[in-house]
Amino acid sequence: MAAEIVNPRSESATSGQSGPGGSDAVAADPAFHPAFALHRGGKMAIRATVPVRDKDDLSLAYTPGVATVCSAIAEQPDLVHDYTWKSQVVAVVTDGTAVLGLGDIGPEASLPVMEGKAILFKQFGGVDAVPLALATTDTDEIVETVVRLAPSFGGVNLEDISAPRCFEIERKLQERLDIPVFHDDQHGTAVVTLAALRNAARLTKRELGDLRAVISGAGAAGVAIAKFLLEAGIGDVAVADRKGIVSPDRGDLSEVKRELAMLTNRARLSGSLESALSGADVFIGVSGGTVPEPAIASMAPGAFVFAMANPTPEVHPDIARPYAAVVATGRSDYPNQINNVLAFPGIFAGALQVRASRITEGMKIAAANALADVVGDELSADYVIPSPFDERVAPAVTAAVAAAARAEGVARR
Amino acid sequence: MAAEIVNPRSESATSGQSGPGGSDAVAADPAFHPAFALHRGGKMAIRATVPVRDKDDLSLAYTPGVATVCSAIAEQPDLVHDYTWKSQVVAVVTDGTAVLGLGDIGPEASLPVMEGKAILFKQFGGVDAVPLALATTDTDEIVETVVRLAPSFGGVNLEDISAPRCFEIERKLQERLDIPVFHDDQHGTAVVTLAALRNAARLTKRELGDLRAVISGAGAAGVAIAKFLLEAGIGDVAVADRKGIVSPDRGDLSEVKRELAMLTNRARLSGSLESALSGADVFIGVSGGTVPEPAIASMAPGAFVFAMANPTPEVHPDIARPYAAVVATGRSDYPNQINNVLAFPGIFAGALQVRASRITEGMKIAAANALADVVGDELSADYVIPSPFDERVAPAVTAAVAAAARAEGVARR
Repeated sequence: MAAEIVNPRSESATSGQSGPGGSDAVAADPAFHPAFALHRGGKMAIRATVPVRDKDDLSLAYTPGVATVCSAIAEQPDLVHDYTWKSQVVAVVTDGTAVLGLGDIGPEASLPVMEGKAILFKQFGGVDAVPLALATTDTDEIVETVVRLAPSFGGVNLEDISAPRCFEIERKLQERLDIPVFHDDQHGTAVVTLAALRNAARLTKRELGDLRAVISGAGAAGVAIAKFLLEAGIGDVAVADRKGIVSPDRGDLSEVKRELAMLTNRARLSGSLESALSGADVFIGVSGGTVPEPAIASMAPGAFVFAMANPTPEVHPDIARPYAAVVATGRSDYPNQINNVLAFPGIFAGALQVRASRITEGMKIAAANALADVVGDELSADYVIPSPFDERVAPAVTAAVAAAARAEGVARR
Repeated sequence: MAAEIVNPRSESATSGQSGPGGSDAVAADPAFHPAFALHRGGKMAIRATVPVRDKDDLSLAYTPGVATVCSAIAEQPDLVHDYTWKSQVVAVVTDGTAVLGLGDIGPEASLPVMEGKAILFKQFGGVDAVPLALATTDTDEIVETVVRLAPSFGGVNLEDISAPRCFEIERKLQERLDIPVFHDDQHGTAVVTLAALRNAARLTKRELGDLRAVISGAGAAGVAIAKFLLEAGIGDVAVADRKGIVSPDRGDLSEVKRELAMLTNRARLSGSLESALSGADVFIGVSGGTVPEPAIASMAPGAFVFAMANPTPEVHPDIARPYAAVVATGRSDYPNQINNVLAFPGIFAGALQVRASRITEGMKIAAANALADVVGDELSADYVIPSPFDERVAPAVTAAVAAAARAEGVARR
């Protein structure tokens, strides 16, 4: 997610050992970062939702009573949704290869992020989630593993798996499973970005079809945002990687970027990100790189600057503001935080509510629209996207996604 | 577990749909079995153990604070035990092939049992547990899948996997993983059986070494009980399968039973279960079959009859009692219930507490002894094993297992 694009250089690694912290002297030592005390023992637990107080309880929740329920599901498989937690629990699956901005830190080190994701699922969407950090980075092994786990889960949230493997893993899982498979780093980011963009356009009385966007970053988020904005009807979008604008004349493109070159960049731009920004209406940063002030200054009047790298935006919002109608970042300490937590809890809650077999483009569009609509009449340059703590968000997204699933024929109840 | 050996013929399958129940008219319809109402929506949920109320909370539990913790674990992998839930969560893994007495009902239909197991882990041992019912019955695929899942878990409880695959799966996982792997249907049953047997021997002032036992059933439980009783020093034990006593002169034995024939049956018995019971001191039933009254009557004076099939014991306790000094079953409505829930929560809690790399024979023996000792001076023919709801049980087993892990050099803290 955009809010997860952390620059590793600004986050010191530490030798561990949380401590009491508190004094200014130790506060500078990352070992005394308050996150350690908070993380001690992990951030989540299981709880029973039925009583197990005495042998009568035990005889219903366990043997012999449970056998009656098992037999019923064996005879009528759909009953698994009614009588187990399957349809309310999501697997949060990673291989630890693209964790925040830290990169390939392995499955164990990724667990704090996956637990964080799991508690956000619960807090914001009422969805149970289980962190599963896998000891393999092989694409086919990840796919096979998740396929084998699928009977126990109502959905799969892929997380922090590096590009381009993330694209193939998601596609293969979607082909093989009849439950939602959703790579949040791609689609969650894209949904929230579109919501902010819709409101920015509404604020400045423009149509998406009139806008030309430039995206910095051709990883999971950049590719997904580009495709999703095209799906939503944006005028044009070009994507830049470290070597410049992705265009068909480049000979160094991976398969994913070749496809991207065909879909995007109707203006046939080539060269640097900076040159592409000249006259552009929208900048979307999901790279962790930097964009110099003159490039921002060269954008079209009334530009939108979404500098979403975290904690260091591609361009500081104070620098961008004089040149832009709307500025957004991935940070919570500036206005307009583009944060995936606005999307994934409601998207899964809506999909699980109607037992959707997958999450369609229409469901994601519906989520973005519902998210944008929460802002309503309060719309301003500093408020194009709701706060993650706005309690209207998850119910609105949930309802919109469930309705879209029904409309698109992927709901199973 | 013994308490899980359910006779499928006595449990009607049902077309589902829980209902209000209550009247005698509908009570006979299994669709109105009270277990359905209890199971609606499943029996468990996730909860966050840290607050996520505002953006300050979010910045510690999630980005950017979480990155500090991830980096620390990446540098010093052992910290995963301190700062995630790994060391307090167990995977409850099944392939749905030997669920209760219902047999191979598949992964989805097994989920109510796995959820039940998970909440018993929590209720009795304070251990978090996640049900993982796999969509494969291939031995190597199950092994590979669990190996890939291991970074996220502190232990693996194998459950309701049919023999003989369960033996190979457990052995291979123990070879490849440095966390406890424990097939409860084998070892949990064996631990509780030994505890009851120790107390029965104490009651009748005999030594284990003076006893000859006959086990009915050569599946997961029967094989494990036989090996464990030998480990504990029983005089002799013979195991019967459907074709009679397992002995070296039989030409129809599987690899597992050939090994069993070499280890057991010092008396070189052959022929029927009934003939082997003549003069035997102990009967242990884990078969779901039946044993006729005359066979029980032919046992040595002061016999122990542990008829653990559920819900129908191999011999009714009222029939066995005139011939036996101690009678135990798997049922909660008769004295001396041999129930795995007496063992597995404390065994895993103890192993996790000291971060044991595996569960040794010594740890299981320690668990059985601790369980037996809870009975103490209250020992009687109707009280050779504590109640599952005796609150002294799990702490006693936990402490004994942790101490044994330290003594055996498998503890890591």
